Amino acid sequence: MSLGIGITGAGVMGADHARTLATQVGGAKLVAVSDPDEARACEVARANEARRHHTDGFALIEDPAVEAVIVASPDHTHAAMVLACLRAGKPVLCEKPLAPTVAECRDLIEAEQRTGRRMIQVGFMRRFDPAYAAMHATLSSGRLGRPLLMHCAHRNAAAPGFFTPEMSIANAAVHEFDVVRWLLGLEAVAVTALRSASKANGTLRDPILLVLEMQNGVPVDIEIFMNAAYGYDIRAELVCENGTVELGRPAPNLVRNEGEEARTFPGDWRGRFSDAYRLQLQAWIGGLGGKTQSGAGALDGYVATLIAQAALRSLASGAREEIAPAGSLTR
Amino acid sequence: MSLGIGITGAGVMGADHARTLATQVGGAKLVAVSDPDEARACEVARANEARRHHTDGFALIEDPAVEAVIVASPDHTHAAMVLACLRAGKPVLCEKPLAPTVAECRDLIEAEQRTGRRMIQVGFMRRFDPAYAAMHATLSSGRLGRPLLMHCAHRNAAAPGFFTPEMSIANAAVHEFDVVRWLLGLEAVAVTALRSASKANGTLRDPILLVLEMQNGVPVDIEIFMNAAYGYDIRAELVCENGTVELGRPAPNLVRNEGEEARTFPGDWRGRFSDAYRLQLQAWIGGLGGKTQSGAGALDGYVATLIAQAALRSLASGAREEIAPAGSLTR
Amino acid sequence: MSLGIGITGAGVMGADHARTLATQVGGAKLVAVSDPDEARACEVARANEARRHHTDGFALIEDPAVEAVIVASPDHTHAAMVLACLRAGKPVLCEKPLAPTVAECRDLIEAEQRTGRRMIQVGFMRRFDPAYAAMHATLSSGRLGRPLLMHCAHRNAAAPGFFTPEMSIANAAVHEFDVVRWLLGLEAVAVTALRSASKANGTLRDPILLVLEMQNGVPVDIEIFMNAAYGYDIRAELVCENGTVELGRPAPNLVRNEGEEARTFPGDWRGRFSDAYRLQLQAWIGGLGGKTQSGAGALDGYVATLIAQAALRSLASGAREEIAPAGSLTR
Amino acid sequence: MSLGIGITGAGVMGADHARTLATQVGGAKLVAVSDPDEARACEVARANEARRHHTDGFALIEDPAVEAVIVASPDHTHAAMVLACLRAGKPVLCEKPLAPTVAECRDLIEAEQRTGRRMIQVGFMRRFDPAYAAMHATLSSGRLGRPLLMHCAHRNAAAPGFFTPEMSIANAAVHEFDVVRWLLGLEAVAVTALRSASKANGTLRDPILLVLEMQNGVPVDIEIFMNAAYGYDIRAELVCENGTVELGRPAPNLVRNEGEEARTFPGDWRGRFSDAYRLQLQAWIGGLGGKTQSGAGALDGYVATLIAQAALRSLASGAREEIAPAGSLTR
Repeated sequence: MSLGIGITGAGVMGADHARTLATQVGGAKLVAVSDPDEARACEVARANEARRHHTDGFALIEDPAVEAVIVASPDHTHAAMVLACLRAGKPVLCEKPLAPTVAECRDLIEAEQRTGRRMIQVGFMRRFDPAYAAMHATLSSGRLGRPLLMHCAHRNAAAPGFFTPEMSIANAAVHEFDVVRWLLGLEAVAVTALRSASKANGTLRDPILLVLEMQNGVPVDIEIFMNAAYGYDIRAELVCENGTVELGRPAPNLVRNEGEEARTFPGDWRGRFSDAYRLQLQAWIGGLGGKTQSGAGALDGYVATLIAQAALRSLASGAREEIAPAGSLTR
Repeated sequence: MSLGIGITGAGVMGADHARTLATQVGGAKLVAVSDPDEARACEVARANEARRHHTDGFALIEDPAVEAVIVASPDHTHAAMVLACLRAGKPVLCEKPLAPTVAECRDLIEAEQRTGRRMIQVGFMRRFDPAYAAMHATLSSGRLGRPLLMHCAHRNAAAPGFFTPEMSIANAAVHEFDVVRWLLGLEAVAVTALRSASKANGTLRDPILLVLEMQNGVPVDIEIFMNAAYGYDIRAELVCENGTVELGRPAPNLVRNEGEEARTFPGDWRGRFSDAYRLQLQAWIGGLGGKTQSGAGALDGYVATLIAQAALRSLASGAREEIAPAGSLTR
Repeated sequence: MSLGIGITGAGVMGADHARTLATQVGGAKLVAVSDPDEARACEVARANEARRHHTDGFALIEDPAVEAVIVASPDHTHAAMVLACLRAGKPVLCEKPLAPTVAECRDLIEAEQRTGRRMIQVGFMRRFDPAYAAMHATLSSGRLGRPLLMHCAHRNAAAPGFFTPEMSIANAAVHEFDVVRWLLGLEAVAVTALRSASKANGTLRDPILLVLEMQNGVPVDIEIFMNAAYGYDIRAELVCENGTVELGRPAPNLVRNEGEEARTFPGDWRGRFSDAYRLQLQAWIGGLGGKTQSGAGALDGYVATLIAQAALRSLASGAREEIAPAGSLTR
Repeated sequence: MSLGIGITGAGVMGADHARTLATQVGGAKLVAVSDPDEARACEVARANEARRHHTDGFALIEDPAVEAVIVASPDHTHAAMVLACLRAGKPVLCEKPLAPTVAECRDLIEAEQRTGRRMIQVGFMRRFDPAYAAMHATLSSGRLGRPLLMHCAHRNAAAPGFFTPEMSIANAAVHEFDVVRWLLGLEAVAVTALRSASKANGTLRDPILLVLEMQNGVPVDIEIFMNAAYGYDIRAELVCENGTVELGRPAPNLVRNEGEEARTFPGDWRGRFSDAYRLQLQAWIGGLGGKTQSGAGALDGYVATLIAQAALRSLASGAREEIAPAGSLTR
């Protein structure tokens, strides 16, 4: 009845998934954690009542107690880990990106197709965020008519010193790439990246303004600002024929003090998307138990990487870059 | 590792707790459900993968697979059920009210005291609501100074036809009675109930304006409106020496259409307090596993009933009614 | 074409009216200002291009260039000044209160009745505030059904040290008394004043919670807090059969900084009600030119003083005080 | 003391200015109105107590009672009217655009320079809107650091059937061009126009997404949507190094009804910018009386037309278009 889950990687995301699994999700239990740093693997396992830990992710995948796998190890290990899951016949929830290169993503899609069933979910958790989900539902209801335009902003309080413009796109903007495709039900055909006057912060030139052009001539502007200073703030407004729908501005309280009425921003994505992570895990586990699979699949992971690479080319060239159609891979 | 939970009552609240337990909480599993209506008991058990069902709540409490009990059977059964749990040595989370009469509540407090440890939690879930919890944290931080006044409103979209003014207080306003005491850390000393011009709705005269007078001279006005028509809306603002803190107005989206920008209200309490119910269960289960117990105890259940009875007297007399001090019972 | 206006009193309110008249209102011009402090009278006259100043208010009223009068001299002078205007046959806009005692107010009503036409307007400017006016329009439209209950709060950032609880009612709460009557179209029948835990501030015990009982059983709670610290904040929500309408929270901007999104409060009433003062003057001048008279009349001034005195009795007695019906005076 | 103002054009804007002048502004009076349609000129003059009307704008300009002129006649007449004002030595407030062509604008700048003083103000009234003014003040305060990026949206409920994409830019977006320059204190160097999937509405393809590139590498995205359906909505957010500042969402009331809490949009620009028009007139008249001149001048009118023409070229070419520097004309 209770599904045995293993997690590769005991870093920030791995530890988060472990804690969510142990306390906020039913129908599954954490059985094993792996990390090359054994102390870390051991600590995350113990804190969340998992029986075993491994120093090798592949050993965890082969562990008979592990029935399904969450891949939260570093990006460059994703492709190999996911492939091992497919070979072991174990469903896998892989943190984004599915893989850093288009070629690896394509290999994974083909490997999954050979299994004859859906095995891979990519951790684009925003699809499970109640606010994005409500936006999707409003659009689907048809009351606002067709979508015509979209505005997005993705703001972090502060990026680590080593963060690069490339990471702003490959690690941050990919969330927008996926959620915009999912909301609009349209593919991106071109992207233009405009760098802004940079805020002084090491080598990171920030913010970046991306303009995506979607099928049917729907433009999407996306501000990516990794050093927005004031807090973690994710914004989206969908402009339709009869009206618009915008993400609400959730805050538990309004505080009035010293001349102002204020609501507080979370410091980072965990405060903003904890529901999304919880609901993603719950849906994934429910889906493994036979219910309809939801969430982003391998193809979605591939397309997000495809758009990210075009955006990186535009950032380098300063010009509009077309996005290769996903071709026969596209649904 | 996984605690066996039984639920008495398979009505709206019982079924809700069962579903929450099965899908959104770790560290416990539903093992049994009881209801005099066997089909209903069976259905809730099966839908949530509980192995057994009973038609008798006492049998469920004695079931060896049941290690802790959620009492969600009708109000008049609460005292007997909770007593049976105490006798069986099983911790119990009892839906509010702890019991409809002050005498029963007092008996339960004494019975719990004889066990020598905390066994009873009362389902005043608002203490776990993230918005009320943030308000509590802001007050505790001291940045707003001492509390001086408080405003509350409790609005339901529509009460069932059989709902009476008495139920508005004993079933609805009790949530405010508890959460106000918890937030302010003060006891109520008097209450005055003012009936409003009634909205035509069967025998229910509605809304009611309650004025609670707390210790230290802190007045609290509470609007109870069971037929507010527009939606389920819970409001609270705490006025302090240096500023105020108010519950936020959560809504996933803003929709702009037909001349308006709107956010939507949930239809009932489940949309508003689903997080609170989930976090309450999670904290209760965590507490049973040895962590510090939180949540409302038997004494809190007793005091809420005490205030409710004074408010009902005021509703009948039209006059200000003093509230008997909880006396030696009070912490 | 351009009406000659005189102002008695060159204090804060007199100077404000003078400036509004000189720059923001058409169809009239300021011709004279009076104040016992001649330098002050002269300065306000000169700054606003009025030709004359007086040290005696009665001389101003008799000045032939003055066709209509704004009384902004101290409260205790109001009755005599307004009476002089009636005798001179000059329309008068009198700052609130019309007069501090019920007896004086009654005399003014009778004196006005003897003139056979409406001569007196009382400066309850909130009736001209766009937000209150929109609330009135929504109520009148009938879409929300009948009013059942009302919540008000009147918060000042800081009261001067000499401010007393009596002034909180006679100078501040009177605005609520008038606007509540105007919105609901109902008279007050009783009032209860509850003092709160006082914030340490000289002799002022603050805040006060007033409960007004209106005709038809409509309760109104009013928080009066003269030392609310955080800013000037006026709140009102009307609870009706089908929904509620609340004053918006106007703020020119939202600023996101240091973890918060904030809007700013004005420091005092001039930032909040500058539109209301401007529109009141414009409507008064338009009305003198023959258009329909709007705004609060002498009877409204009388009733506001009547309620204030009952509230003061309740503050002293701690009990509910009935409000004498305005009797034959009432419309 | 009271300045005599003449208005050329008795259409929507002319009639609006006349009414504002007659009732909401001090220090000036409307003395004459001109319109080729004599009945219309006569009606606007009479309704606002102007003594004279003309059928010829040039006759109005020469009318000795007219001391300053508001040009509200059709766009193609602006250059000739303003030139006549300069010749007559009468200050002029010209509705936007200053003139439809860059060449005409340049001629007016030179003509004004020959007078040796500032004579021309262009009716970019947003500079006087309290919300934009507060944004300007926040930016100037330095607390948010340097501006890095800006988002704007300009939405009308419905454009007339004859409205063209060209008009969306030359008549609507010019307001953004001016206010963005004024806020940032930076000139535009390039513009790219992206057409969206068009909403079916005659020949108007709508909305348009404009990306302005300002000096110092500050990108500005501007949505222009003349058929936004839901109401008139103007948005702007300035993203700075330490935080952001956004136009508030003013609405007099919140109404809760039928499951929603809503605020209402004005139907068109008059509901949104009535304060701005009033304050613009007041400041212009105050400035004529010797105080410092504020508001947009002839050069600002010229630059707005320059950007509009580049945006129109981009709309036609689909490519990024550079904007000629205003050169020796630029301040």
